[in-house]
Amino acid sequence: MTTAARPLDLVEKLATFSEHWTPHVLTELNDYQVKLAKLEGEFVWHSHEDTDELFLVVEGALSIDLPEDVTVELAKGQLYVVPRGVPHRPRAAAECHVLIVEPRGVVNTGEAGGDLTAERDRWVEGEGPRDA
Amino acid sequence: MTTAARPLDLVEKLATFSEHWTPHVLTELNDYQVKLAKLEGEFVWHSHEDTDELFLVVEGALSIDLPEDVTVELAKGQLYVVPRGVPHRPRAAAECHVLIVEPRGVVNTGEAGGDLTAERDRWVEGEGPRDA
Repeated sequence: MTTAARPLDLVEKLATFSEHWTPHVLTELNDYQVKLAKLEGEFVWHSHEDTDELFLVVEGALSIDLPEDVTVELAKGQLYVVPRGVPHRPRAAAECHVLIVEPRGVVNTGEAGGDLTAERDRWVEGEGPRDA
Repeated sequence: MTTAARPLDLVEKLATFSEHWTPHVLTELNDYQVKLAKLEGEFVWHSHEDTDELFLVVEGALSIDLPEDVTVELAKGQLYVVPRGVPHRPRAAAECHVLIVEPRGVVNTGEAGGDLTAERDRWVEGEGPRDA
């Protein structure tokens, strides 16, 4: 095995960074990535034309604004999959911690771009690709 | 949108079934499935030749036995990705609740088969494929 046989603790790994809106890759599952992020405030409206995107709230509460004035309100322990191509805007009144699952290579701002666009393949401290 | 714009609560959905070792599909992410399962006792040694498999402990504690007498001990809030092709045996001294992420079509017992093989595409009550 080339991967370390040890558990990854979500809360412990979330404590290793403080930036908002910058997903950090925790591990990979085939060609998918599991990311952790801290969110606070309003993100930009964007969409991912080629992929669904899973959000699971680890701590706090997350609002995901969708078209037609629909908002999905997520509490700790709740998840939602934003379907591919659907415009969405993550929003958090107070800092919230989330786990994200999506294919490798997805840009956080989707087709929207802009200042909040995060570096891709930024890993959580101490973690990295399995074959590195 | 063809998917319901509402949160999926892990604890609430786990309360809808009681069988052990029978993953229930909660939602899909592209061609991947997010499943919930209740585990207690020892599963069979098996492997999945074509895919990694993610386990996240939602409640309780899970041991994943690996080759060479290695065991990954997972507590609540901890995850581990079993690499493709690696034999593993999930084991739980007391009932534990997990979230599993893997491609659609994966059989729970992998290449091992046997009595513990669960029906594929068994969904959590009230949930179903996005386009159904």
